[in-house]
Amino acid sequence: MSTEPAPDPELAEALASVRLVDHHVHSCLAQPVDLPAFGDLLTESDRPAAVGTSPFDSQVAFAVRRHCAPLLGLAPHAPIEDYVAARAALPTDEVDRRLLGAAGVDRWLIDTGFRGDALVDLDAFGARVPGASVEEIVRLETVLESVAREGGADDLEDRFLAALTTTTAGASGLKSVIAYRHGFEFDPSRPEPAEVRAASSRWLAELDRDDAAPRVDDPVLLRMLLWHGIDTGLPLQLHAGFGDPDLDLRRCDPLLLADWLRLVEPSGSDVLLLHCYPFHRQAGFLAQAFPHVYFDVGLAVNYTGAASTAVLAEALELAPFGKLLYSSDAWGPSELHLLGAVLWRRGMAEVLGRWVRAGEWSVADAVRVAQLVGRDNAERVYGGRHG
Amino acid sequence: MSTEPAPDPELAEALASVRLVDHHVHSCLAQPVDLPAFGDLLTESDRPAAVGTSPFDSQVAFAVRRHCAPLLGLAPHAPIEDYVAARAALPTDEVDRRLLGAAGVDRWLIDTGFRGDALVDLDAFGARVPGASVEEIVRLETVLESVAREGGADDLEDRFLAALTTTTAGASGLKSVIAYRHGFEFDPSRPEPAEVRAASSRWLAELDRDDAAPRVDDPVLLRMLLWHGIDTGLPLQLHAGFGDPDLDLRRCDPLLLADWLRLVEPSGSDVLLLHCYPFHRQAGFLAQAFPHVYFDVGLAVNYTGAASTAVLAEALELAPFGKLLYSSDAWGPSELHLLGAVLWRRGMAEVLGRWVRAGEWSVADAVRVAQLVGRDNAERVYGGRHG
Amino acid sequence: MSTEPAPDPELAEALASVRLVDHHVHSCLAQPVDLPAFGDLLTESDRPAAVGTSPFDSQVAFAVRRHCAPLLGLAPHAPIEDYVAARAALPTDEVDRRLLGAAGVDRWLIDTGFRGDALVDLDAFGARVPGASVEEIVRLETVLESVAREGGADDLEDRFLAALTTTTAGASGLKSVIAYRHGFEFDPSRPEPAEVRAASSRWLAELDRDDAAPRVDDPVLLRMLLWHGIDTGLPLQLHAGFGDPDLDLRRCDPLLLADWLRLVEPSGSDVLLLHCYPFHRQAGFLAQAFPHVYFDVGLAVNYTGAASTAVLAEALELAPFGKLLYSSDAWGPSELHLLGAVLWRRGMAEVLGRWVRAGEWSVADAVRVAQLVGRDNAERVYGGRHG
Repeated sequence: MSTEPAPDPELAEALASVRLVDHHVHSCLAQPVDLPAFGDLLTESDRPAAVGTSPFDSQVAFAVRRHCAPLLGLAPHAPIEDYVAARAALPTDEVDRRLLGAAGVDRWLIDTGFRGDALVDLDAFGARVPGASVEEIVRLETVLESVAREGGADDLEDRFLAALTTTTAGASGLKSVIAYRHGFEFDPSRPEPAEVRAASSRWLAELDRDDAAPRVDDPVLLRMLLWHGIDTGLPLQLHAGFGDPDLDLRRCDPLLLADWLRLVEPSGSDVLLLHCYPFHRQAGFLAQAFPHVYFDVGLAVNYTGAASTAVLAEALELAPFGKLLYSSDAWGPSELHLLGAVLWRRGMAEVLGRWVRAGEWSVADAVRVAQLVGRDNAERVYGGRHG
Repeated sequence: MSTEPAPDPELAEALASVRLVDHHVHSCLAQPVDLPAFGDLLTESDRPAAVGTSPFDSQVAFAVRRHCAPLLGLAPHAPIEDYVAARAALPTDEVDRRLLGAAGVDRWLIDTGFRGDALVDLDAFGARVPGASVEEIVRLETVLESVAREGGADDLEDRFLAALTTTTAGASGLKSVIAYRHGFEFDPSRPEPAEVRAASSRWLAELDRDDAAPRVDDPVLLRMLLWHGIDTGLPLQLHAGFGDPDLDLRRCDPLLLADWLRLVEPSGSDVLLLHCYPFHRQAGFLAQAFPHVYFDVGLAVNYTGAASTAVLAEALELAPFGKLLYSSDAWGPSELHLLGAVLWRRGMAEVLGRWVRAGEWSVADAVRVAQLVGRDNAERVYGGRHG
Repeated sequence: MSTEPAPDPELAEALASVRLVDHHVHSCLAQPVDLPAFGDLLTESDRPAAVGTSPFDSQVAFAVRRHCAPLLGLAPHAPIEDYVAARAALPTDEVDRRLLGAAGVDRWLIDTGFRGDALVDLDAFGARVPGASVEEIVRLETVLESVAREGGADDLEDRFLAALTTTTAGASGLKSVIAYRHGFEFDPSRPEPAEVRAASSRWLAELDRDDAAPRVDDPVLLRMLLWHGIDTGLPLQLHAGFGDPDLDLRRCDPLLLADWLRLVEPSGSDVLLLHCYPFHRQAGFLAQAFPHVYFDVGLAVNYTGAASTAVLAEALELAPFGKLLYSSDAWGPSELHLLGAVLWRRGMAEVLGRWVRAGEWSVADAVRVAQLVGRDNAERVYGGRHG
């Protein structure tokens, strides 16, 4: 974060005022949280903190205390116990309104496919962000899982397609979590119908064996989803890079997607690589090489907090400035929805400001790049608002 | 780029005045360019920019407007349209003379193996850089391709060796693009004669099927080229890391070369890893581990522009300072030949200046390292001038 | 290193005064060194420097001249020849006492498993660091090798277990160098007894063929060592990332350990990933994902010298602050024992100071994180002192 002279006033103003599009985000919590639950929500890990360590000794928790505390009437860097107490003393929707409102986002593209039961629905989210557009990103795996038990294997693909048509009617884009479910080392070609039927049979037979919620991790079915997603023409988001301990990070390097990206290039559909850390330089290469590839470093900015400036600077190395987007990837506490925006504004001000002060960039260029990344690139890729 | 106090005057002067050796570069354009063509030349991608985006929204294009515009009589950061108009209003060779002259390079080692038809030949290049040495780096694949159709498979290897002897008579080094053609995941051993003959037969049979220009991508033949290259004793350059969308970047990680590097170590021939981004820290490890391994971050400096300081700093982490070289990897517009030098001088001044101001390095050491990297290492590796 | 205003006095004082735990280090040289030997000891390479280059043109050698020279009565940046002469003019144990004493370390966890014949033993090391705790880390491979020839294959595992019990009686932890001997691409499961017996037979039969010192590189035996190490409940260190040219760096990416880490998680034993460069961001991911995973960037700090600030900053991105440790990984010259500490103190002061000055972190938090990383995390993981 800035340790340098104040940035050019015009650039500072542009970064403070740009109305962001958060192109990949989730909804916020339906219930209040206590201190232990809040700790669990400020990490991508699903494990408890190591014995003797605190879940609040992290960049993201320090950033909460720095940037969210003042919005709840506390001093910056207030103790986390005070912060959570202040949070609990307010109605949850009031906390959300303050934090979401301070983010300066006027378009939220919300992935509804992950643990939606713990979160408020899109209408309730919309009520917390008056005046903003709230739109849906449909998770492909969730659509398939929702129709898995509604029939046999032979028409699973048809059921999925019908559900996809319905679900995407008002949606702004699609998302796949093949990174989590299998990784990017998959056969890039469109699967043959016979392959899909065989995979469908295997999967439905497995589902018959217990009552667990369906969870698709078969690579043939996951590929089928990707290709049908591409066919819709909607922008397709792919989780890439780090996430929770479930994933095998080595298999989430977006370079593994290169052959598949070449195959889908003629379709005209856009692919958006999410997060990408620590492979964001690799994502920048792909965004530079292929017209249909875009990326963000969303989740990484929140979780690297004060250190996120370096990540943002690296994201601005190789990729054309028309190919990088803003997102928070917030899920749950509205602190994360806010921090994404605050850290991005501060980090971009420092990085772009440094280049302006050094005489390498003009102020006008810096302002324009800030607007491209924060807003205009997403507006172009996702088109008119559906919210 | 520098946002800090001016560097020590002695260091600033050393970096401004060091006469560089550009140890890996191509010639410059034979024809004038218009705006669209100029956009195509300022990216490693062979695709058009994404719809709605500009090919000039990139670090390298911003650097052109910043550093080249004043040499054509425009203000820094002039609009790209004005820049290209000013360029078109001058004779191309006058543009080249200004830009190449301002680079402060007095030895150019030119790879002549890629799309030479679009570029001026070495004599014409030499006429644009009076007083400088202009030398040739011979691309191994191009030599093989040039003799492919001149005989049968049984003596393809002999034809290649004869052509290699002729071509390298006045050359300063060799280059391989096995990274593009196959990647670094190849059997590191010298191929057996029978393997080579079989691969030669397959390849020539393929060539018989159409009239296309020969393009060798058989891993046996590519390995044969590498080993014969090593046998010459000439410095051998290898493209590594990022490039155009043709390559599979995962297979261009120079760490994949480790076994081959161990096998060629006893030969006494030097291997120079080019570019290496985003695997330049890995290249630094190899340069530190093996006496015969050198590297540069040439292409990456141009394409990361104002952000290149971080790349240069990373290249100076682990590798001994006697093992890092300067290059621009410019191909085509002489803007790239200039920018390589300008960005390197500025970036090194900032990075080394920071360490001097912090008291970590002496000025004398910083000056000496600048001269090693910019010039002396290349002079040692490539020996006397042949130009 | 700092080019910025002096850090907050409280933070500066905390970083200058924290008594470090060097949780991974080796002993110091038993004999004086001359200039060539000193050059050989300031690199991880076992090769000579390239012809025409100096082994002292490196970050670590510059750091020796900067930070060690004043402790021997010379000016900072003194020529290396003067430095080695001043070193040779003093008794070796006096050099060690000065350098080790200036490190401000009061607990040394010493890996005794590598070329101990060239180093002073733990008692002699202890005599050089009066008042400090000196403890042993037992290298698993060394224990197995020590009993290899003392019996047959059928009871090799039992002999190892008996020796492990004896050797670890007063030890503070264990270490494995499977990264060097095989890499991390191994079957993560505990090997079956029959597998171990077969591997033991193969290995002992090999040993029968010559008189060379035993060196275990069989992946079954190496896995056996890891699992028995986990069973002890002692903290288990794993070399990861760069080292000498022996290792295949691609196979030392700690992400390759993910499946094994999942399997050992229920044991309750802690795993400490050492060095990790250039995969330290990946290590930070693992430390964030898994409660039992810790890491350091020890060796990388020494070898990147003035550039180590960036490495430290990257290590503080994703990992919780309770999961990062200090180490020097010094082996041999006591300059390395000192430099680890000096560079860590300076780098942390710069990185944390930057975040404090920017208002992102409070001073109190920065002080606490410095103490966690420098001392408290190691005290928690390694428990009471055995030295």
